[in-house]
Amino acid sequence: MVTINENYLKLKAGYLFPEIARRVTAFAEANPDAPIIKLGIGDVTEPLPEACRVAMIKAVEEMGDRDSFKGYGPEQGYEFLREKIVRHDFQSRGCDITADEIFISDGSKCDCGNILDIFGHDNTIAVTDPVYPVYVDTNVMAGHTGPAREDGTYEGLIYLPISAENNFTAEIPDYKVDLVYLCFPNNPTGAAATREHLQQWVDYAHTHGSLLLFDAAYEAFITEDDIPHSIYEIPGARDCAIEFRSFSKNAGFTGTRCAFTVVPKTIKVKASDGTDVELHRLWNRRQSTKFNGVSYIVQRGAEAVYTEAGQTQVRKLIRFYLENARIIREKLSEAGIQTYGGVNAPYVWVKTPHGLSSWDFFDKLLHTCNVVGTPGSGFGAAGEGYFRISAFNSRENVETAMQRITEKFKV
Amino acid sequence: MVTINENYLKLKAGYLFPEIARRVTAFAEANPDAPIIKLGIGDVTEPLPEACRVAMIKAVEEMGDRDSFKGYGPEQGYEFLREKIVRHDFQSRGCDITADEIFISDGSKCDCGNILDIFGHDNTIAVTDPVYPVYVDTNVMAGHTGPAREDGTYEGLIYLPISAENNFTAEIPDYKVDLVYLCFPNNPTGAAATREHLQQWVDYAHTHGSLLLFDAAYEAFITEDDIPHSIYEIPGARDCAIEFRSFSKNAGFTGTRCAFTVVPKTIKVKASDGTDVELHRLWNRRQSTKFNGVSYIVQRGAEAVYTEAGQTQVRKLIRFYLENARIIREKLSEAGIQTYGGVNAPYVWVKTPHGLSSWDFFDKLLHTCNVVGTPGSGFGAAGEGYFRISAFNSRENVETAMQRITEKFKV
Repeated sequence: MVTINENYLKLKAGYLFPEIARRVTAFAEANPDAPIIKLGIGDVTEPLPEACRVAMIKAVEEMGDRDSFKGYGPEQGYEFLREKIVRHDFQSRGCDITADEIFISDGSKCDCGNILDIFGHDNTIAVTDPVYPVYVDTNVMAGHTGPAREDGTYEGLIYLPISAENNFTAEIPDYKVDLVYLCFPNNPTGAAATREHLQQWVDYAHTHGSLLLFDAAYEAFITEDDIPHSIYEIPGARDCAIEFRSFSKNAGFTGTRCAFTVVPKTIKVKASDGTDVELHRLWNRRQSTKFNGVSYIVQRGAEAVYTEAGQTQVRKLIRFYLENARIIREKLSEAGIQTYGGVNAPYVWVKTPHGLSSWDFFDKLLHTCNVVGTPGSGFGAAGEGYFRISAFNSRENVETAMQRITEKFKV
Repeated sequence: MVTINENYLKLKAGYLFPEIARRVTAFAEANPDAPIIKLGIGDVTEPLPEACRVAMIKAVEEMGDRDSFKGYGPEQGYEFLREKIVRHDFQSRGCDITADEIFISDGSKCDCGNILDIFGHDNTIAVTDPVYPVYVDTNVMAGHTGPAREDGTYEGLIYLPISAENNFTAEIPDYKVDLVYLCFPNNPTGAAATREHLQQWVDYAHTHGSLLLFDAAYEAFITEDDIPHSIYEIPGARDCAIEFRSFSKNAGFTGTRCAFTVVPKTIKVKASDGTDVELHRLWNRRQSTKFNGVSYIVQRGAEAVYTEAGQTQVRKLIRFYLENARIIREKLSEAGIQTYGGVNAPYVWVKTPHGLSSWDFFDKLLHTCNVVGTPGSGFGAAGEGYFRISAFNSRENVETAMQRITEKFKV
């Protein structure tokens, strides 16, 4: 008799976004003419930058010629892309990261989940509440938690509440945690972390021998000068932090698929026999054995992000979405609805009006305004009474959606 | 103190192919003018079919228009591709598989490793010897084995020897194994399995409540009419077999990246509380949570494999490599070297001449003939004294390589 991984059976309901998709599909089928506007899932809507498209078409053409055809590439990603990333995203900001510490992948979501492969099962693990659900669910699936409680939290995980009171940055614990997930700019709250806050985390990690799993998928949206874009801008982070990055939200690669993870060679962990083990070596082995690299065509597209044309086009995309975020913030504020975030992030975190629960507000918004957002409680118990609105849509749709919401929900 | 997954430390040496790459690189650096011909790693060399390229360029162009832009796709893959796969690869062969049982992925190697996520840690597991190393290494990494023995095998795994004596098809065990990895056409030996052999495995699985993990990455190379292309051609397989497929070896997608896994909804496993659990539900949850789908562009390229033009082009590619395989078989045989496989597979499995060990033959071949192959012992202890030669190269390189080998090693 085959046995299954019974940890999967602990998972509460579906993953958040499929559940949203299910409700939206049901509504759309019952109301085929409803002019639905989706500001829910954090998916981009604007065309892929021309520089990326030109590069990918060239790469497809290379595949048609025996001499330039590309078969298996390096599992870690092509040198041409790793070099550009390290120069542009890290060395230019004073981060001491080298190209062989960059691992190209097909998604940050994948990496955030897969990274658990290289860790033991006895680590204590902290996430914020609310939090990007993948951090939690992948730990449940890996058997790092007990069963779910009534409020959706899991026994055995440490939840660090984030709220308006602490500027959506968790208090640094006064006890030891082994693995700490941090996401800045934050999904779902849109909050950014100051240099001082991140320094406290790095110091904490050094004190306790902890590791920070730093998700910087939204770093391109940072507008304030003093906000770090990478954890490696913080002295000491090279010894205690893995960083996740993505081309999904800066260059619109959500459907094209490319991301990367930084594992500095200086992160060393003691094995039970007392020897030092480089996490870099373990992750390299994991990727070599269980992954075969990202499509050559896609890697050429990602490389084009770093050309002058690519940079101009990406900055234009970011400015466009940030202007959407500004409109969302201002219109909701004018209507008396409290908002957070949306300045260094494409997400506006909204206090639900009239004391509605997150899912009640979701259903009401869908049914009365035909607007889709994401219930804050889907990101954790402490997200109850909040709602995430994404700035990823056309200007017209954002303006129409805000008009509908403010008309119906004016406080 | 963070703990690591210490199972990684049990892994013997590097994954086979990186080790080969290391030796080849060292030789090439010391002998920059050596005209090296690579028949080692199973990587294709001929251009990507035109139909696939045309489809991908169109897809890239769609990404440039807001109305046809694609963001996140379904984690399971697009309907347009799943439908074509199921019709062409399964229903046309009488296999009762539906589109929602197909999960599109970025590689069979990834799926073969990731599939372990959904199983318990207490299953007994069997692999053939020799075997594709990923099946073994991913089980070591998941903690399903004890330490490595002197000969490279791992305690706790069951090895089913395959050799010329049993036509490279394992004897069906007379005891219970929970998970059985099968690969037909076989990598590395190039052997194919008859309908009768596969029926025995399906019957075995039914008798013991076992699950077959059937890797059919090389099915396109089957030339003999009576050899099944899919395990689902065998009655009863829908209840006990997961099948892995790939576009790597038929359409040359090794660098483009697309594959798929079939998980029939009828495979049910009992949880410890006695309830039935569909493996399909678990794999769907795994993919939804830890994967974000394959690039839209690449999925359109894979879809084009199923057009009339795509089929013609793929068949031409396959014929080309199979003719290479024929040349390898015949030339080596003429030189008195014993060969197997190469009829329903792109691999020729060679008995090393003069009683050389696999790695000695590898080094000799590299140094005296500048030809790269794969040592049989890299695939398992029972592969010692064998050598895999791949048919993936140009006609000229294959002919030159065979000329060099037969001159030096004529028995």
